Amino acid sequence: MSVIVGNSEFRPLPNNPGAKITGVHESLLQECEKDIIWYRDNFFGKSHQNYLALDSPRGPLAISVIRDADTYKALLRTTAGSERLSVSSSSIPTSFVRRLFGLGPSTVNLMEGISRNIPVRSLRMCKEPNLPNELLSMEERQVIRSYKFGVAYVAPGQCSEEEMFSNRNENTSPAFKQFLNFLGETIELRGWKGYRAGLDTSGSNLTGTHSVYTKWQGYEIMFHVSTLLPFIPGDRQQLERKRHIGNDIVVIIFQDSDVPFQLGSVTSHQNHVVAVVKPEGENYRTIVAPKNGVPGFTPDLPEPCVFGQDAVSRDFFLHKLVNGERASYKAPSFAPKISRTRSVLLYEVASKFLK
Amino acid sequence: MSVIVGNSEFRPLPNNPGAKITGVHESLLQECEKDIIWYRDNFFGKSHQNYLALDSPRGPLAISVIRDADTYKALLRTTAGSERLSVSSSSIPTSFVRRLFGLGPSTVNLMEGISRNIPVRSLRMCKEPNLPNELLSMEERQVIRSYKFGVAYVAPGQCSEEEMFSNRNENTSPAFKQFLNFLGETIELRGWKGYRAGLDTSGSNLTGTHSVYTKWQGYEIMFHVSTLLPFIPGDRQQLERKRHIGNDIVVIIFQDSDVPFQLGSVTSHQNHVVAVVKPEGENYRTIVAPKNGVPGFTPDLPEPCVFGQDAVSRDFFLHKLVNGERASYKAPSFAPKISRTRSVLLYEVASKFLK
Repeated sequence: MSVIVGNSEFRPLPNNPGAKITGVHESLLQECEKDIIWYRDNFFGKSHQNYLALDSPRGPLAISVIRDADTYKALLRTTAGSERLSVSSSSIPTSFVRRLFGLGPSTVNLMEGISRNIPVRSLRMCKEPNLPNELLSMEERQVIRSYKFGVAYVAPGQCSEEEMFSNRNENTSPAFKQFLNFLGETIELRGWKGYRAGLDTSGSNLTGTHSVYTKWQGYEIMFHVSTLLPFIPGDRQQLERKRHIGNDIVVIIFQDSDVPFQLGSVTSHQNHVVAVVKPEGENYRTIVAPKNGVPGFTPDLPEPCVFGQDAVSRDFFLHKLVNGERASYKAPSFAPKISRTRSVLLYEVASKFLK
Repeated sequence: MSVIVGNSEFRPLPNNPGAKITGVHESLLQECEKDIIWYRDNFFGKSHQNYLALDSPRGPLAISVIRDADTYKALLRTTAGSERLSVSSSSIPTSFVRRLFGLGPSTVNLMEGISRNIPVRSLRMCKEPNLPNELLSMEERQVIRSYKFGVAYVAPGQCSEEEMFSNRNENTSPAFKQFLNFLGETIELRGWKGYRAGLDTSGSNLTGTHSVYTKWQGYEIMFHVSTLLPFIPGDRQQLERKRHIGNDIVVIIFQDSDVPFQLGSVTSHQNHVVAVVKPEGENYRTIVAPKNGVPGFTPDLPEPCVFGQDAVSRDFFLHKLVNGERASYKAPSFAPKISRTRSVLLYEVASKFLK
């Protein structure tokens, strides 16, 4: 074990002896992307009903409902997330009188049949033709297509965050440079047109001259590399470095040291997953430690958790980090922020169309 | 030069001394994906006009038109491809009488203003509410999300296609096995749930027990590896191998031989891009030779064209191959097939809605 947990909030994940290092076999779609596909395939461009609530016991919400043969399909969007629902039309009661007039179930019966806890009394139907577009673009705004991961170099003899931010790039080892090549491409920041992750690309080099970047499975990943960020002599905390890496949800610690790393020295509230990578010859022994409250995430780590530098190992490692960031959004420390964002987006749409 | 061109149809691409090995910086969107985005963003879910032709001087076609402020936007779908068009409404003549009645331009004036050569007389407007969905799904069916590339092992002393198909897997070199690891993951075919590229995944092992696969930038790539396909003793041509690799548009030749490879020995009509990879220590010296008629494709090859085994080199190499396959679709030997597919798809939609 090359980390010390102490009273840190981070806990190393157990290795799973049945797990294997594989490439990406599963779908990488995010929940909001699945919502978009569900809405596009089943509702958009077809005659369907939309209900909005500006202010309900569950906050602002938007519900889309369509009857498709013997099934009612619905997309229920709340501040907590979206639910894709299907119910048989026979399970929804329709009064004798409504049936007599060839009508479907009442809104109250329909909503209660689709899902419990829909605040029916707060809903208002909205027939504005532009609403479906707005609902879709609201979901689109939640799709995350870029990631920023911190990478910190821990020199021989070091074991804490403060020490690691003090390292100069010219003093890093060849193994670290090789690891950066494993992660991605060293790009020049001046004039960089891709995802910049808060780095200065104006040519003023305020955040260093180069960074490490990759496009992986269609996602852009920028690495905030501690030793490529500016070193300010005399600044004990190296705030210019901590400002970026302290704001990353996932941080990779490259442990070029035989002293166990103190997880307790990682104190930023934003950091949720720490991956400690220790070079062993050409391989990387890896520990992944999520913060308390981050739910489990795939892929499971093998036993021993040692990666090569091959393409499959790299896919596995980046897959674990991307999923670690996605799982972090659900942590109690993070979920309220996501929920607040959804709340604002839902409120914007509802207030625009329920004038 | 480690290939002999002779009277082959393949011509090695020149190296570009200004080119660099980089990761994927540009968009990988296919033209049909750009068409889908253009239609979704500008037409779908909004009030717009669709015109169909079942049989016109340009074959079946479908045109979508929308007025957006002072601009007419159109998507013109023909058997040759789609055009995304924008024209200022002021450039389209509208007769005095039509203006008097608050009408827009006539269909003839509109179409002539949008693009020359639209066979206006063949068009019929279609207001079926389900048409936009069908137009979108027609485009969706043209998006290619999976690729199959051939990989053939050329043993020391060999120089032709026939020889290379005769190699047994147990006689390949460690360098070749390392190259397969560079390309992707060796997966078991039995029960494989991903893209299978025509291979047998039933468990009968009719096409061997394993293959090499990767998910790259969201695309699935299956490699048809010559020595992992069944070896049939006594079959001089090894048709079980040639049947798969001969049907691949892109074929990688792993040249474990100092004898120059004879490009003329690659005779399959389907093969359009040959990449000859020669191991040099831990690196790969590479020649990419497209067939006559394949238009140019990015990224440019550097001088010297030598790749490492790092992630950036791999991204560059796979990027070149994917773009090589995409460029091949435009070759005279291939374009008619693509055009015929589009023709069938357009005819299906037009005949369904112009009953």
